[in-house]
Amino acid sequence: MDLHELAPDLLAFLGQSAYLQFGVFESLSRAASAAPDLDAKDGIGRAAGFALAKYQGLVAEIRRRGDEPAVVMQPFAGAIDDFHEVVAGADWLEGLLGVHVTAGLLDDFFIRLAHGLAGDPGPRAAQVLGLDSGQDAVVQILQDAIAADPRLASRLAMWGRRLVGDTLLVARSALHHSNNLDSDEQRIEPIFTELIAAHTRRMDALGLTA
Amino acid sequence: MDLHELAPDLLAFLGQSAYLQFGVFESLSRAASAAPDLDAKDGIGRAAGFALAKYQGLVAEIRRRGDEPAVVMQPFAGAIDDFHEVVAGADWLEGLLGVHVTAGLLDDFFIRLAHGLAGDPGPRAAQVLGLDSGQDAVVQILQDAIAADPRLASRLAMWGRRLVGDTLLVARSALHHSNNLDSDEQRIEPIFTELIAAHTRRMDALGLTA
Repeated sequence: MDLHELAPDLLAFLGQSAYLQFGVFESLSRAASAAPDLDAKDGIGRAAGFALAKYQGLVAEIRRRGDEPAVVMQPFAGAIDDFHEVVAGADWLEGLLGVHVTAGLLDDFFIRLAHGLAGDPGPRAAQVLGLDSGQDAVVQILQDAIAADPRLASRLAMWGRRLVGDTLLVARSALHHSNNLDSDEQRIEPIFTELIAAHTRRMDALGLTA
Repeated sequence: MDLHELAPDLLAFLGQSAYLQFGVFESLSRAASAAPDLDAKDGIGRAAGFALAKYQGLVAEIRRRGDEPAVVMQPFAGAIDDFHEVVAGADWLEGLLGVHVTAGLLDDFFIRLAHGLAGDPGPRAAQVLGLDSGQDAVVQILQDAIAADPRLASRLAMWGRRLVGDTLLVARSALHHSNNLDSDEQRIEPIFTELIAAHTRRMDALGLTA
C-alpha cells in the first residue's frame, strides 16, 4: 500500500514540506533560545541547523525547477504558522516535545509521500527529508527533564497525545483526493496507523505513554 | 599596530566569540520568524545558518582542546545575553539592523584579535569568523525597507549610532589589559578607529548616516 494515488502535485509537495521545515527551524531556534543551559542550547541549536538544511535542500529543488520558493510556499504559510503556534505549547518543554514529535511524524509522512511522486525530484526530496535531524540531543534533554521532575511525565504524555490530531490534519491536507473518498480512506488508514506506531515508539523512548 | 599584547587567553577568546556567534544565530532566527514575507525569512534564515556554522566551528575548536564548550562559554553568557537583548531594539527592523551592524563590528574585531593569539587555533578561529555571513540578503532587506519608508532612515541611523558604544564595550571586555593602561589605550585606539570606519561603510551602504 503506498500513497502514489494520493500524491500531490510536485510543486505543492515541495512548497508545503519546505515551509514545514522552516517552521521546525523556527520552533527549534526558539527552544534553543529559551533553553535553561548552554548544553541544551547547543544540542537544540544543532537540531535547528539540521531543519534549516532540510528546508534549504527542498528550496533548492524548487529553484532547480525554475520556480520562486516564496511563491510556491506562500499558499501553505498561514496554516503551517498556525500549526507551529499550537505546537509551541505552554512552556519551553512542551514546545520542545511538540516540535520533536510533530516533526518526527511529518518527516515520516512526507518521506512516504515523496516516494509516490513522479520523476527524480521525489526521491531527492525523500533523501533531504531523511537527513539527520539531530533529535538524539533533543531526546536526551527531554529524558533528563522528565527524570528530574517525574510529575512532568503525565502532563507531557497528554500534550504529546493532544498533538497527534493536529499533526495528522496537516498530513491529510497534503493529500490529493480522488473522487472516491472511501477508497482514499482505505489507502490512508494503514499509513496513518504506521505513523502513529512510530509516534508511539518516540513517546516510549521518552518514557511517556502515547 | 596589532592586538598581540592585548590578546586574551585562547580559551576565553573561544568561549566569548563562540557564544557571541550563538547570540547572532538567536537574533537572526528571531528576525527570520518576525520577517513580513517569505523572501525575507529565507534570506535572514540563511544568515542565521551561517552564524550557527561559525558558532559550531568555534565550539569544535574548544572540543579539539579537550574542553567542554558549555563550561568555557558560561562566564560570558550573561553579558552577551544582555547585549543581544539591547541589540533586538524596539521592533523587527531595529533588531535586524542591530544584529547586522553589531555582528559586523564584532566579527571584524575578533578576527583582528584571533591573529594575535599564539599557535594554530588563532588563525583557524579567524578563518571561521571570516566565513560568509550571508549579510548581502540582510542588507538588501534593510535597503528595501528604508526605500519603502524614507522616514525610517533617521530613526535607524540613530539606532545604528546608539549601538556602537555598547558593541565597543563588548569588544573591550575581550581584551587582556597590561599594567600600563596608557600604552594599552594607544594600542586599542587605532583598532577601534578602523572598526568604526568599517561600521560607517556598512551604514553608508544602507543609506544611513553613521
